[in-house]
Amino acid sequence: MGEHIVIIGGNAAGMTAASRARRVNPDLKITVLEASQFISYSICGTPYHLSGLVEDPAQLVTFTPESLLAERGIHARIRTRVEEIQPSRRLVVARELATGTEVEISYDRVVLATGYLPSSPAIEGAGLKGVFTISRLEDAVCLRSEIETRICRRAAVIGGGYIGLMMVHALHALGLQVLLFEKSDHVYRQIDPDMAEIIEEELQKKNISLHLSTAVRKLVGHQGRIQSVEIIGKRAQRELFPVDLAIVDVGVVPNVRLALDSGIPCGISGAIEVDGRGQTNVSGVYAAGNCAETVHRVSGKKMFSTLGTTAARQGRVTGENIAGLRTVFPGTLETSLEKLFHLAIGRTGLTLQQSLEAGFDADSAMISGWSRSGYYPESTPIHLKLIFERRGGRALGAQIIGEDAAAKRIDTLATALTAGLTVEQIAQLDLAYAPPYGTLWDPIQIAAHQAKKKLH
Amino acid sequence: MGEHIVIIGGNAAGMTAASRARRVNPDLKITVLEASQFISYSICGTPYHLSGLVEDPAQLVTFTPESLLAERGIHARIRTRVEEIQPSRRLVVARELATGTEVEISYDRVVLATGYLPSSPAIEGAGLKGVFTISRLEDAVCLRSEIETRICRRAAVIGGGYIGLMMVHALHALGLQVLLFEKSDHVYRQIDPDMAEIIEEELQKKNISLHLSTAVRKLVGHQGRIQSVEIIGKRAQRELFPVDLAIVDVGVVPNVRLALDSGIPCGISGAIEVDGRGQTNVSGVYAAGNCAETVHRVSGKKMFSTLGTTAARQGRVTGENIAGLRTVFPGTLETSLEKLFHLAIGRTGLTLQQSLEAGFDADSAMISGWSRSGYYPESTPIHLKLIFERRGGRALGAQIIGEDAAAKRIDTLATALTAGLTVEQIAQLDLAYAPPYGTLWDPIQIAAHQAKKKLH
Repeated sequence: MGEHIVIIGGNAAGMTAASRARRVNPDLKITVLEASQFISYSICGTPYHLSGLVEDPAQLVTFTPESLLAERGIHARIRTRVEEIQPSRRLVVARELATGTEVEISYDRVVLATGYLPSSPAIEGAGLKGVFTISRLEDAVCLRSEIETRICRRAAVIGGGYIGLMMVHALHALGLQVLLFEKSDHVYRQIDPDMAEIIEEELQKKNISLHLSTAVRKLVGHQGRIQSVEIIGKRAQRELFPVDLAIVDVGVVPNVRLALDSGIPCGISGAIEVDGRGQTNVSGVYAAGNCAETVHRVSGKKMFSTLGTTAARQGRVTGENIAGLRTVFPGTLETSLEKLFHLAIGRTGLTLQQSLEAGFDADSAMISGWSRSGYYPESTPIHLKLIFERRGGRALGAQIIGEDAAAKRIDTLATALTAGLTVEQIAQLDLAYAPPYGTLWDPIQIAAHQAKKKLH
Repeated sequence: MGEHIVIIGGNAAGMTAASRARRVNPDLKITVLEASQFISYSICGTPYHLSGLVEDPAQLVTFTPESLLAERGIHARIRTRVEEIQPSRRLVVARELATGTEVEISYDRVVLATGYLPSSPAIEGAGLKGVFTISRLEDAVCLRSEIETRICRRAAVIGGGYIGLMMVHALHALGLQVLLFEKSDHVYRQIDPDMAEIIEEELQKKNISLHLSTAVRKLVGHQGRIQSVEIIGKRAQRELFPVDLAIVDVGVVPNVRLALDSGIPCGISGAIEVDGRGQTNVSGVYAAGNCAETVHRVSGKKMFSTLGTTAARQGRVTGENIAGLRTVFPGTLETSLEKLFHLAIGRTGLTLQQSLEAGFDADSAMISGWSRSGYYPESTPIHLKLIFERRGGRALGAQIIGEDAAAKRIDTLATALTAGLTVEQIAQLDLAYAPPYGTLWDPIQIAAHQAKKKLH
């Protein structure tokens, strides 16, 4: 029997690390410990279960413990919560939640892949029945069950970030009247305000009741169940909005309690400090995914990423290293894509605001192009913002909003950022054209041409 | 009055050069001379006029001479065929086709933007009525008129290249029974045979009568009109296929007659020799677009490009140079995209066959992925082939076939080729993921992971 790899957390990073380690070294014994009842599920798919597009939550799950063992030779123990890592003894202490039994499991190398947790909402009333946070498949299952078994007409979403917007979409698809409360001026701060306005227009077109610059003061209950949302309005007045349920998305934090309790240090970002191979500062202990720190490929700064793609890629590299290869994770551009009603929203690299905060002498060009040739039926707008250094013109980030898969163009810009291309080089890219799929000059080139005019 | 720029040819390269020169230098006098009756039309749009998707051919035309003068201050003289350039006198000699009048026009700088011509088909019977080549908007207008005014049930397309396939699609959309004759083993030699097979399957699904490895011996007429196509079959037997019309696409050649007659030399590719700024070997004479030579950005070899995108980009750079800027055209990757029935077909860089012919120690990885997450409705296959150097792993080319805009992913690979990325670097790209628009690992990364296994 080979060495024993223990992986704590059975989703994007943990499962990818386990699968990759198995592929690289078939002699390893690999055990995945997962506190919840599901492994290897698509957290990105949970809104589609909620909305009913994906009827059975089992569709979102790639492996059961049984199929994982049969197909990949990886042991998974679900409902098993790790309570401590003892690096000096190369041991993890876990509790089997079904029985309450404490078990000790020895390891040669252990990987922390504990992901993130919703920030504890500091909102009064967050503990009422009918109030949800969404960070696990179970959360979506419970929420859907609530909607199916009770009469729900009005739902509040508190926080207009990525998860909040996904929930707005899903609840709207279920026919609920949706109120969205966001304390800052704009939704979705992963993009700049001028791009966020396009999303806000779309929300209003869909009759979402949008409350920007609005702090939720408390959730008001009746007999232990939510009855209304109390806000502090723009003129400091209090207002009550009756609702049947509320989803709170006030951000997420890296799930590092176990690491800290076990003496494994976190970095400046709050996530577990690791090198490019996934090694923590403690011998034999690795970390990967959203609980682990990563580096931003444009700013070079350490950061906490919440993306499943970052988790899976970092997990893959860590899996290779625990299995004996020497590979390095180059970091993230925080490239992301989401579908909100008909709009695809893509972003990569730094926003203009993030660029300025990171100390770049940055500027931006924002244009609107078309998804097809003007004469071709059903052409729709594509909005594109390109951020770049004013001297030299190196691209720093981009944001795209358009219908259909228009925003998958963000990959072209993620590739340009990776290669350090300038707006001049982007303008000269040999991009593809066909009337049903774009315009002779792609919006990417149109934006790059605009950007060139602003160079110093 | 500023200097006088004369541009010969009023489409992709010529119009882009004229517009760009006007923008850079408002003092120039700019005259475009065009032999046909249309300027600034989308040749890529002609199949959609033929199929009826774009009813009025005027929709494909951006400018009339009147609107071009009013909006851009550029003079256009249509139906004006240039017969000679006299560089020593800085003069072009042209004939106004309506009246037969010969005119002399003096210039300070002249740009040849004469595009390409269909290869003269060496097929007996190519002159019969009902036999068409398609290289101008007029050709599509004539062909559509033929189909509307006569009873046409069966059409032959001779040659399965880019234009041939577009014509198959358009004729099929009109309800005709279509026969496609291709003399080589596979259609569309801009992609490798294993990818071409996917197209051939699609053609057969659509009941196109596909005849590969089939040379057309002659077109047989009756009373001056085509009646049937005579082929030499695989077993050297002759066969006759009755048809009502035929479209011949046996390739195109750069339209360099005027250049050669005027002493302006062509390069090794057969197109007019130019430097990166668009200058020919003759003082004051520039060339741009499909009549001009370009350089392949991967192989570094001089070549003749038939793409409208190459023409427009080269035209833009030439327009800047004739207006006084010093910019350089970096060349082409021959990135292209087309829609054939439900399939998008994208390609960039070199095929495997072209890579080997160019002397690269090349290999390839071919994979099939999906357009959406497995649980998300309506996921369709994406076929992707990645070509790379076996030592070092630099990417040399890529081909993608999939439904919808799947193949617009080719832009990501065109960007990677431009930056000289290796398959290892491509595998590590931070590409976007959302269940409605792709899979956690994009097909591009899956192919790059496959490719890594084949490196030496």
